[in-house]
Amino acid sequence: MSLDAVLARIDADLPAATERLLDLLRIPSISTDPAFKADCDAAADWLVADLNALGIAAEKRTTPGHPMVVGHIEGTGPHLLFYGHYDVQPVDPLDLWDRDPFDPEIQDTPKGKVIRARGAADDKGQLMTFVEACRAWKEVKGELPCRLTFFLEGEEESGSPSLVPFMKENAEELKSDLALICDTGLFESRVPAITTMLRGLLGEELTITGPSRDLHSGMYGGVAINPVRVLSKIIASLHDETGRITVPGFYDGVPELSDEMRAQWQGLAFDHATFLGDVGLSQPAGEQDRTPLEMIWSRPTCEVNGIWGGYTGAGFKTVLPSKAHAKISFRLVGTQDPLKIRESFREMVRAMLPPDCEVEFKPHGASQAGAFDTSDPVFEKARQALSDEWPDTAAYIGCGGSIPIAGHFANILGTTPMLIGFGKDDDQIHSPNEKYDMESFHKGIRSWARVLAALTGKG
Amino acid sequence: MSLDAVLARIDADLPAATERLLDLLRIPSISTDPAFKADCDAAADWLVADLNALGIAAEKRTTPGHPMVVGHIEGTGPHLLFYGHYDVQPVDPLDLWDRDPFDPEIQDTPKGKVIRARGAADDKGQLMTFVEACRAWKEVKGELPCRLTFFLEGEEESGSPSLVPFMKENAEELKSDLALICDTGLFESRVPAITTMLRGLLGEELTITGPSRDLHSGMYGGVAINPVRVLSKIIASLHDETGRITVPGFYDGVPELSDEMRAQWQGLAFDHATFLGDVGLSQPAGEQDRTPLEMIWSRPTCEVNGIWGGYTGAGFKTVLPSKAHAKISFRLVGTQDPLKIRESFREMVRAMLPPDCEVEFKPHGASQAGAFDTSDPVFEKARQALSDEWPDTAAYIGCGGSIPIAGHFANILGTTPMLIGFGKDDDQIHSPNEKYDMESFHKGIRSWARVLAALTGKG
Repeated sequence: MSLDAVLARIDADLPAATERLLDLLRIPSISTDPAFKADCDAAADWLVADLNALGIAAEKRTTPGHPMVVGHIEGTGPHLLFYGHYDVQPVDPLDLWDRDPFDPEIQDTPKGKVIRARGAADDKGQLMTFVEACRAWKEVKGELPCRLTFFLEGEEESGSPSLVPFMKENAEELKSDLALICDTGLFESRVPAITTMLRGLLGEELTITGPSRDLHSGMYGGVAINPVRVLSKIIASLHDETGRITVPGFYDGVPELSDEMRAQWQGLAFDHATFLGDVGLSQPAGEQDRTPLEMIWSRPTCEVNGIWGGYTGAGFKTVLPSKAHAKISFRLVGTQDPLKIRESFREMVRAMLPPDCEVEFKPHGASQAGAFDTSDPVFEKARQALSDEWPDTAAYIGCGGSIPIAGHFANILGTTPMLIGFGKDDDQIHSPNEKYDMESFHKGIRSWARVLAALTGKG
Repeated sequence: MSLDAVLARIDADLPAATERLLDLLRIPSISTDPAFKADCDAAADWLVADLNALGIAAEKRTTPGHPMVVGHIEGTGPHLLFYGHYDVQPVDPLDLWDRDPFDPEIQDTPKGKVIRARGAADDKGQLMTFVEACRAWKEVKGELPCRLTFFLEGEEESGSPSLVPFMKENAEELKSDLALICDTGLFESRVPAITTMLRGLLGEELTITGPSRDLHSGMYGGVAINPVRVLSKIIASLHDETGRITVPGFYDGVPELSDEMRAQWQGLAFDHATFLGDVGLSQPAGEQDRTPLEMIWSRPTCEVNGIWGGYTGAGFKTVLPSKAHAKISFRLVGTQDPLKIRESFREMVRAMLPPDCEVEFKPHGASQAGAFDTSDPVFEKARQALSDEWPDTAAYIGCGGSIPIAGHFANILGTTPMLIGFGKDDDQIHSPNEKYDMESFHKGIRSWARVLAALTGKG
């Protein structure tokens, strides 16, 4: 049976596939930091070259930000699109990394081999699972199983400012029968999963200015307004005692979970003690009347992602700072309207400002939540293919993260998105010492070969 | 009359004196940052050489931190000690400086010539006013007017960790009849002043840890405790709605102002609209039932001097941080006990910690407030000397800042401290673009010549 030949080829080629991934991981393509612009470009070039080597007509397409990589190859059967992103998160705090984040290494751990590097799991390793599945297929069968479009982004970790305009301008070119997206994870690090519910994301940066310059706290302390105190008070007021978010109108459009979904999620036997214990915690800190799985999959949040102001170096400096800053994000669900919430949040902050203080806001992305209909038979086909590869039967799950691209495929292109990924909970994405399990990489490649076979009826 | 000759010599030597100060200002002696250790050493060497050139037996004395510069010269009449500090504050935020903070320049401004550099006012320029007065005196008269001890510190801006042990170990050597300290300012940038009331200072750095590592806010947001939110809540609770500090027992030992002192301060006609307006503010933000002058001279404070946690770079990163940090300081008055307040503050913070959070404290100095008796006739002599130099009659004033050295002279050495300085409110000490007015420098040198004459009966 020829799918077996493809799978055998994947097994045999794993060392070479790993080397290719390590090459890509060596490129520090941090999209949010302008200092790494040339590196983002280099990562795009690398992918163009690799896709070209597969016979795919790929090219770098310019945007006002980092380039998109778009590639096409003709074929029979359904037209499938594959999406992944080649940019990565910043690496700070660098001193908490055990090694250079861009000097990847295969490490033996008690849980098996891992690929250690920034971007190993998010998303270069995941992206390459699909590319490697295609490579093995082509090498065994001489051609890919269907018409394919590759659509690889370089701004996913910095709010995707160019994505929607690019999709709109190139809608005809990008439309396909199904968009496969590889940027999610296994359920409980074990169960293969198709993610059908995603939270939206609203990002805001605010700067509060009090005095027109930094002051000496001896000379002005006690009489001049301190913007750090003002900011702290605002942040402290964003949640009430029960963990609910206090931004007016915030819960408009937040649906209650259906009984069916709640029952299915209870059936998943989510181990919240381990989920929290893995990161040194014992108690869920969110809304007190919700289960942890509800909190992370179906409830909206408000988090402070960064705060700074005044003297933050070694030692002490008795400065009364002029400015205080915070980066705050909201995860959204249901039909919560990110733009309305942005305005309501800003209004709330302005209303809390004491005399002599000013606030400036900087938006950082705004995407609605998404929930995808799984009635199209392709979902059951893919779920079966995943179940064939992994010990557990694949599940339809929610996801606390935000993958705005999924909604854009549906809304802009009319293309059904399907989110399949192989990340694990301890991959430490966005954190120091990010890794991707060799198991995720290997079985991920094999999973895509099986999904391609199932969706095209070939193999 | 020979004091006139000294004053004339000061006037004639001003360009050369200024060049010497610029030399000293070029040394980036930031004491709080270990990266500048060699520069602190170099500043001490510079001062040793300059004092030696005056015939003063000066040397660098090692401490566990930065060295002290101690110099002696014999003479008749009272034994006077002079204290100043050669270390400076850090320079961040560097982008707000108009020029390199350690490339000093004489600038013409609408208010007159200024010496622009980090440390120009705090305290190198002030320190050199006394040294230059001695130089002129020696050059005109061949010898200094009395027995003198120089005691110059290099850790004043970093909590003076070596000061008290050094004073105790060398008490016999440092004891004198009067300790002159030049690290304060003119009242209202105009009226010469002897500062007789100083606030104490308690510095604390706290680190709150929630999750054991930085998390993805999509995966954990809403369920994992966020230490920035915890820290914000703590900071927000440190003051009540009326501006009073809520640390239990904080106001123990805070005296009410005497009617006499209140009357004298009202007589000073402090222009709080200008004081606040100079830094872009219009309303005093402290305790609502106090005048601004009371707030800064006689009331205790609690200020956040720095805060940081999570992602603070360009762009956005949806991290849920593991740690949040703040530097907090308290200005103390009367007999408030810094160590008791430290414990009470820490206890209050610990009591506010939610489950799964830990706090670490790092102390940064603790000094009691000081108030000095002005009944010794030397005070009236010095006040008269200052009044002779400046258009306004000199005043006894309070000071919002903390100069722990003053209390140490009294308590450890039994030596009366006398605080005279020539800084102005807009010197921007501890801020970008620090400056020292050429008027402060020039008339400061002349003032010391007059004070030396008044205290020794010579000249």
